[in-house]
Amino acid sequence: MTVALTREALEAHLERGLMQALEETLAEEHPADVAALLADLPPTEAWRVLALMPAPRQAETFGYLPHPAAARLVETGERARLALVVSEMNADERADLYNALSETHHEAFIPALAKAEREDLRRLAAYPPDTAGALMTSDYATLAPDLSARAALEKLRLEAPDKETIYRAYVVDREGLLVGSVRLQDLILAKPDATVDGFMERRTLAVPVDADREDVARKIAKYDVLALPVVDADGRLVGIVTHDDATDAMEAEVTEDFHKAGGSVSIAGGLRDASLWLLYRARVPWLVVLVFGNLFSGAGIAAFEDVIAANVALVFFLPLLIDSGGNAGAQASTLMVRALATGDVRMGDWGRMLARELSVAFLLGLTMALAVSGLGYVRGGPEIAIIVASSMVIIVTVGSLIGMTLPFVLTRLKFDPATASAPLITSIADATGVLIYFAIATQFLIPAL
Amino acid sequence: MTVALTREALEAHLERGLMQALEETLAEEHPADVAALLADLPPTEAWRVLALMPAPRQAETFGYLPHPAAARLVETGERARLALVVSEMNADERADLYNALSETHHEAFIPALAKAEREDLRRLAAYPPDTAGALMTSDYATLAPDLSARAALEKLRLEAPDKETIYRAYVVDREGLLVGSVRLQDLILAKPDATVDGFMERRTLAVPVDADREDVARKIAKYDVLALPVVDADGRLVGIVTHDDATDAMEAEVTEDFHKAGGSVSIAGGLRDASLWLLYRARVPWLVVLVFGNLFSGAGIAAFEDVIAANVALVFFLPLLIDSGGNAGAQASTLMVRALATGDVRMGDWGRMLARELSVAFLLGLTMALAVSGLGYVRGGPEIAIIVASSMVIIVTVGSLIGMTLPFVLTRLKFDPATASAPLITSIADATGVLIYFAIATQFLIPAL
Repeated sequence: MTVALTREALEAHLERGLMQALEETLAEEHPADVAALLADLPPTEAWRVLALMPAPRQAETFGYLPHPAAARLVETGERARLALVVSEMNADERADLYNALSETHHEAFIPALAKAEREDLRRLAAYPPDTAGALMTSDYATLAPDLSARAALEKLRLEAPDKETIYRAYVVDREGLLVGSVRLQDLILAKPDATVDGFMERRTLAVPVDADREDVARKIAKYDVLALPVVDADGRLVGIVTHDDATDAMEAEVTEDFHKAGGSVSIAGGLRDASLWLLYRARVPWLVVLVFGNLFSGAGIAAFEDVIAANVALVFFLPLLIDSGGNAGAQASTLMVRALATGDVRMGDWGRMLARELSVAFLLGLTMALAVSGLGYVRGGPEIAIIVASSMVIIVTVGSLIGMTLPFVLTRLKFDPATASAPLITSIADATGVLIYFAIATQFLIPAL
Repeated sequence: MTVALTREALEAHLERGLMQALEETLAEEHPADVAALLADLPPTEAWRVLALMPAPRQAETFGYLPHPAAARLVETGERARLALVVSEMNADERADLYNALSETHHEAFIPALAKAEREDLRRLAAYPPDTAGALMTSDYATLAPDLSARAALEKLRLEAPDKETIYRAYVVDREGLLVGSVRLQDLILAKPDATVDGFMERRTLAVPVDADREDVARKIAKYDVLALPVVDADGRLVGIVTHDDATDAMEAEVTEDFHKAGGSVSIAGGLRDASLWLLYRARVPWLVVLVFGNLFSGAGIAAFEDVIAANVALVFFLPLLIDSGGNAGAQASTLMVRALATGDVRMGDWGRMLARELSVAFLLGLTMALAVSGLGYVRGGPEIAIIVASSMVIIVTVGSLIGMTLPFVLTRLKFDPATASAPLITSIADATGVLIYFAIATQFLIPAL
């Protein structure tokens, strides 16, 4: 159904100056696809392509551009052309782009806008990132409660081109307080003379302007709504968050959790365009923590130096045992971090989860012990087999319990549970694994020394 | 704005038989909130609560219930009451619930439905899970191309109560082929006598019925649409996927990726209600793979037994070195798995990513080497310090490259890149780490023996 303009075709058109043909092709493309192509082009080329589209479509395409690419275009664009695009953009996308720019380029934005738009931009851009305020738009439709259905429909008809959505209009009283909402289809079905407050939904979900973006996105997903109104501390309507922006926010949160689980600090703005230095800084903290965590496991090994020197076969199983504890812990923690993030498991479920984890971990430990005891027998005889197998059961159980508990403890301490990353759990599991293994080995082997 | 009925209040009402008061409270609650409360109640109590609501709201509440809870209610409900609920449910939610039931309870579903609904259910339930077909609903609005705007609006007005969304109606010709779509607001704005094919959008995005649910969800997010039409191989419209179902599908996919990254097989139906046996089966495979992967690192250690026996201090650093390789690899792979999943990085970016990973990993390795060389000096003197530091640089670099490459290789081999889990990378990093460490140690220490 969609015509797919490829990057190669686009570049060929630009090179050969076939601008008329390109203009026709672009008119058939979805702005999201055009944006994906422009993101990879040098800014001057991208501006040449944009010039082939009418201003509202340029603005729409801008809204789909990743922020680094959009910022590059703002920094290189002619003032007059930029002004045209900026004034046509959605209020929330404009504010997001404004915040993605460096201070020196903020001025490029301001003159393009009418006074009311400037104030709106300053207001939207001032909300802390990761809140409902930063996510919301001011392009929503409002109705007065005493309007007739006919007049309300006429108002929406006139405003439709400037609003993000008119499928739901919000009803506000004279003080600006949110008192209800009306679906477009109910307005169509209503008797033309009925007043809005007669058939509006009074039970309107709303979120405070400082609500966490993750909570807003989760609420939109939970209630299956197209948008959520945002209210200030007094209950006045100040914006709406639409489902598409909520989806983007959720994606960003998931990426953050993913990166944390893997032991990186989250990387804003995408991996593809991240600088070496940014990547280095994202990954180095947990790795260095691991080195210092090793002070403990190293000290543990030093304490058992004699047992090890007398039984080098013990060393064969050291990597396996500490990794098993670390991996069982990582499994338990990722399951729990995700379940807490989706709301599947709540803080109050801790006791039940712990009891179940104990059983599962013990079974896993037994299975692993069985798998490893054969190897132990072959490499070091029956004694080593018993030491390795019994260490395995305890290490896997303890590692799992640590992994499962950590997200709860972190939440309680007001940290993000996703901080329970693989490297952190590995460090803890290492030290406990070493101690358990050699303590058990000492019990069995000292009499034989 | 919303009245929040707590679980305690609900139970107190049920215990004291205050059904009239409860009925009034329930009328004020959102069905999603009622469903969350019912999921925790015993089935007989849940049915008592449901009985207080009109059938359409019971059906809506059913749609928000997690599948295990909904299935319990189906299994315990009276036939007549169940029939009422089932016939009122959305077509796609009904089909999903049908698929979540055991075979023996399928029959409870069928008699409740009219013939057309039965056929629709059988058709929807037959699509493989994780496809557009399984995600779509048949409650969509269609228009003929030659209809006038007035007649079209009248048709939507009449059909509105039975459709999931009338904000966009799909235009199909006599053969059932999808030829375009119309937004409700365009229908309102159009001249009453204009025919639909005059102002419909011809450029309508659509997905094939066998499209992967992740691709469908990603497309909805990319194009910021409320729903996507689904077509069969001939281009005939067979259903639509709405944004809320796409969000749920995306959540499920993310959870699957999360679990995989942590080294578990994905757990369907939520962690909270998962059985011990399900959890055991989800976690045991990768742990056992780890045991057998250890055959390689164990063999590596055995090969260097003499060097180790003569220099037990080497063992101090073994856990740290192999963990560093594993953790750097896990960082690199989670970053890449997520970037591939969101489309931030594509298969073609492999070369560029590899070059950058090499630089970042080398810098990380140097930093770690610096951090560990002091420890090495204290524990084992200058020679051990040099061995440990140089091993660290190589192990971290190699581990990172393995972690970064694996998701690409898995994708190329038609596996899910998320299979590049922590335990898999740990196993590989262990074996390579042991070989690198002791090979370097042998070079430095053999002359001293």
